[in-house]
Amino acid sequence: MQFHFNGFKSGDPRLANARSEDLIDQRLNDGDQVDVLIVGSGPAGLALGAYLSQYNDLSISMVEAKDGPIRVGQADGVACRTMETFEALGFAHRILEEAYWVNEIAFWTPDSKNRDRVSRDRVIDDTEPGLSEFPHVILNQARVHDYLLEKIRHSPSGFSPNYRTQFISCERDDQKVHPIKVRLQQEDESFIYVETQFLVGCDGAHSRVKDFLGVTFSGDRSDKVWGVMDILCSTNFPDVRRKSIIKSDRFGTLLIIPREGGYMIRLYIELDLSVDSEMKTKDQVTPKKLIEAANRIIAPYEIALKEVAWWSVYEIGQRVADRFDDYDEREVNRFPRLFISGDACHTHSPKAGQGMNVSLQDGFNLGWKLGAVLNNHCSTEILKSYSDERQSIASQLIEFDRVFSIIFGGGATNVTQSLASDQHDFQSYFVRHGRYTAGVETCYRQSQLIGSDVHQGLAKGFPVGKRFQSEVVTRFADSKPVHLAHEFKFDGRWRIVVFCPASNFSKQLTILSDLSRSIFDVENPMLSHLGCDASRIDELIDFRFALEGSPADYGGTQFPILMQPEKGDLQLTDYEKIFCSQTKSGVDIFCSRQIDRQAGCLVIVRPDQHVAGILPLAQFREMTVFFEQFMMIRK
Amino acid sequence: MQFHFNGFKSGDPRLANARSEDLIDQRLNDGDQVDVLIVGSGPAGLALGAYLSQYNDLSISMVEAKDGPIRVGQADGVACRTMETFEALGFAHRILEEAYWVNEIAFWTPDSKNRDRVSRDRVIDDTEPGLSEFPHVILNQARVHDYLLEKIRHSPSGFSPNYRTQFISCERDDQKVHPIKVRLQQEDESFIYVETQFLVGCDGAHSRVKDFLGVTFSGDRSDKVWGVMDILCSTNFPDVRRKSIIKSDRFGTLLIIPREGGYMIRLYIELDLSVDSEMKTKDQVTPKKLIEAANRIIAPYEIALKEVAWWSVYEIGQRVADRFDDYDEREVNRFPRLFISGDACHTHSPKAGQGMNVSLQDGFNLGWKLGAVLNNHCSTEILKSYSDERQSIASQLIEFDRVFSIIFGGGATNVTQSLASDQHDFQSYFVRHGRYTAGVETCYRQSQLIGSDVHQGLAKGFPVGKRFQSEVVTRFADSKPVHLAHEFKFDGRWRIVVFCPASNFSKQLTILSDLSRSIFDVENPMLSHLGCDASRIDELIDFRFALEGSPADYGGTQFPILMQPEKGDLQLTDYEKIFCSQTKSGVDIFCSRQIDRQAGCLVIVRPDQHVAGILPLAQFREMTVFFEQFMMIRK
Repeated sequence: MQFHFNGFKSGDPRLANARSEDLIDQRLNDGDQVDVLIVGSGPAGLALGAYLSQYNDLSISMVEAKDGPIRVGQADGVACRTMETFEALGFAHRILEEAYWVNEIAFWTPDSKNRDRVSRDRVIDDTEPGLSEFPHVILNQARVHDYLLEKIRHSPSGFSPNYRTQFISCERDDQKVHPIKVRLQQEDESFIYVETQFLVGCDGAHSRVKDFLGVTFSGDRSDKVWGVMDILCSTNFPDVRRKSIIKSDRFGTLLIIPREGGYMIRLYIELDLSVDSEMKTKDQVTPKKLIEAANRIIAPYEIALKEVAWWSVYEIGQRVADRFDDYDEREVNRFPRLFISGDACHTHSPKAGQGMNVSLQDGFNLGWKLGAVLNNHCSTEILKSYSDERQSIASQLIEFDRVFSIIFGGGATNVTQSLASDQHDFQSYFVRHGRYTAGVETCYRQSQLIGSDVHQGLAKGFPVGKRFQSEVVTRFADSKPVHLAHEFKFDGRWRIVVFCPASNFSKQLTILSDLSRSIFDVENPMLSHLGCDASRIDELIDFRFALEGSPADYGGTQFPILMQPEKGDLQLTDYEKIFCSQTKSGVDIFCSRQIDRQAGCLVIVRPDQHVAGILPLAQFREMTVFFEQFMMIRK
Repeated sequence: MQFHFNGFKSGDPRLANARSEDLIDQRLNDGDQVDVLIVGSGPAGLALGAYLSQYNDLSISMVEAKDGPIRVGQADGVACRTMETFEALGFAHRILEEAYWVNEIAFWTPDSKNRDRVSRDRVIDDTEPGLSEFPHVILNQARVHDYLLEKIRHSPSGFSPNYRTQFISCERDDQKVHPIKVRLQQEDESFIYVETQFLVGCDGAHSRVKDFLGVTFSGDRSDKVWGVMDILCSTNFPDVRRKSIIKSDRFGTLLIIPREGGYMIRLYIELDLSVDSEMKTKDQVTPKKLIEAANRIIAPYEIALKEVAWWSVYEIGQRVADRFDDYDEREVNRFPRLFISGDACHTHSPKAGQGMNVSLQDGFNLGWKLGAVLNNHCSTEILKSYSDERQSIASQLIEFDRVFSIIFGGGATNVTQSLASDQHDFQSYFVRHGRYTAGVETCYRQSQLIGSDVHQGLAKGFPVGKRFQSEVVTRFADSKPVHLAHEFKFDGRWRIVVFCPASNFSKQLTILSDLSRSIFDVENPMLSHLGCDASRIDELIDFRFALEGSPADYGGTQFPILMQPEKGDLQLTDYEKIFCSQTKSGVDIFCSRQIDRQAGCLVIVRPDQHVAGILPLAQFREMTVFFEQFMMIRK
């Protein structure tokens, strides 16, 4: 956490750059013009808003039909990758403290001696070691919203949602500075018109915004009906505080997800419509009937209900939009200005715990791209990549969900039984599954924003297209152990991590000095972009240096200016750019991420932490070529 | 973090038990009666207030002569033990994120070839491995106050300080329910009278409250003068981000403490009065003169000042009061009702970074004792132990500070040079010194509240009288890795940790069942105290169980009710009492804390986390004998 570089300021540094409360609480009025209008305050909308609000001087508004933040129910799974992105927003540790940690999964199946009773088959780890520095956790979606809303409120372009405000319609006129005109209905049923540069529909499965994009959906409805409830109960089931998948012989499957606070649990109860046919319509379902269904599955154990915090019945299919924006290939000069995000473009069953996570990552992906375009850092061309990247991820999710639903649905007993016959297969299936649901397998294809993997061999542990996986390193200036990727906050900056081998260090230092000079060269297009002020390069691209070895190996080294730049109004030296690979815990990033110990490399990391490219250390001019593809250059 | 056991409640669980804002913001009025009146809002007062505000329905008020919270300067060292206590108040992680971490100390001495230049002698670790799970950190005292004030505000007996209110005088009349009558002066110079059960003077070195206790001070003034400043600067000194002790040949010593945020540093500059005689009176000192003095010491390096955030000059001696309360041995029936705490009873030089830390621990020590008496959990007898325990700690601090000042003062070069001649001695001196300043050596003597160490051999790693050092264990119900002592929040509860060996477990289980029965026995004096409601024993004594081995070793075990008690309005099962010693990281608390693997033991832990006693597992009836000494028993 760096602060005070423009001078000492007392008080909480987390609030130092927050917008004033007056501006944040301003509601939308008829005729207002904004940069981005977000429709919906669910995970996709809040993630988008959280990223965008980190930029200075953007005007972002959010409208929400509901009358306030949600307080109960809905999603509760927070994947490892989601925790990493919460770290980039600064609140991962508070969620770690508050949430339930999923450490293990218990499998219960019909007892071989008496198939009317379930018995514990096995317990496996939920997450494979080394997948992420964060665990998979469970927390009420409402609390995740609270953290995102708080982050938005404490940010330079902070805002508060306009509740009780309904999106009605929109039209686009590219002749205008704010080409999207939006009609909104307010609480008193009056209408206002707002003009925006970009409109993002994060308004859920019944999205109204999606109707204005001309997208088509593929997929189908499920014929399975599930009950879901958050309860306080007393039970003799021994694994009630472990995530448990309980498959009965005759009554279907029950999923127990322990919840935050140590007492509450969530149940997903498969409803057997031959037995529970009256439950097919929600108004005939009661919590009592759901618990009866759960108790049929979990016999000989019993759940005695004490309190129901929330419950619902769902029957949801897998469905995905063909595009997530209004871009039309026949009009190549028009870039997208309308987007949809989250459940508005993809729906699937909640049991794999993916809904909230994928929606959040939609929002972050779009957030930095809109921010870069609105700040004139990048060309509008990059906006097309949002749909390209996220539609493909959503399609994979739908496919994954189809297989996953089989495991949990009717065919479930068979699948686990066949898997169970081979301990190794069983484990490896759940390892693959675990990586996917952890969110760390997301890989964007080569594009303008993702370079080729031709130099992947220089850093095999940083697959191009996937997120930059964090590792502990030792900060050179003060020997503090830090997680490298935790330095990469969601602030719109690109990162270039320079891995410098210890062997032949004087030669390497020459390369680093050349790199430093090339960056500060007035001919550098990145500098011309910023108006030739080399001291401000850091606002756009955050260089970091990982030196092989320990701080003591580099005592007395005169580092080039790029490695210890002077920043801010007072031109103070930033000592937090240089790290060493040796750590007290024995971890060495050169080893764990398989960095070439002869050649070293540069790793280019996007503002959403995805690896955009790997280059040989000495070929840093190719870096400029990469950025010239999409960065705006002021002549 | 446990919540929802009285039913589901939406929103931030950290605020679930907070007092209403209206009550918190009530100011003191003439004629008010309170349980505790705290004079002064420094570390001692805020720590006391933070502990007391965790109890339900106490009426606590704080008066402070200043017109608001401090914003700059003063202390900045936060010792490991202090971080542990901040964890017990729930905000350690936010401080970890914001503070500077002291990992190493660099020693600079006159260069052997040219004694007018300093050169780096060595760098050593600041804290020995395994001392605490928390690092030694540095943070503006004002921020520490902010966290304590926020904690107080979010607590069941929360309050806000009455600023611009001055303590004038007090008198004690034991015939009254609120025996202390206090005269206060308000901002408009009018006087009000307030009656309180207890009055605590946390009003600093110039305490007015201390004058009403009849205590005497011993100690003497120093003849050393030091300048201290928090600055933003640019410098070519290579260790500017390491804690550095720089001893020049002719110009004295400079201490550099890097500060939070990555840019600010604190300097302690020894002023050589033969050179800087004009600096002896503060009004002749300027930041420019202080930097000149620093630059004389640090040559050939240079510090160029960019901004001064705060500065001061001090010349402070070591001084300690003979008692910290108004107890008079000649009046055995009167227990203490007036106390002093923090700088009001002990002053010393700031360079060892002890001031804020010792004052905070004073406050926590008194906090739980006043809370226990006001809640009728313990007899008033325990109040005498505050002065007994903390006066002896302060006396040790004064003695330590005397030696430490020699190291930093004039004799410094000699001491480190003689130590430097033997690498091993040098290191071991700083290891001893580091343990002391980390705050983990604090050991209370045997008393009513600290049992004998006759059974110390059963758990050598938990010295009786010292704080219960945390260790990672695995929670039985969900396999979560947790730091055992992080479960021991500052909530007024005693803890009994039952260490149960794996060998002969069925016999051990019989003992545990007997223990459970004995606790729930209606004849148990602890129960009669609580009105015989066994389900409420947990509100007074929090039993925890550490089983040797892993959760899988205990599958299917039927645990007695004490190990999985039913709690709260809904009588929900608490699954967070049982832990296993095996962890994924390889740590095993039976090994690291040297628990007897045949006998096991009970460790009694006080509400301030100090080990009060160790008993053989089967001799749990002695536990009742221990508590009967000071717990109130309702017949």
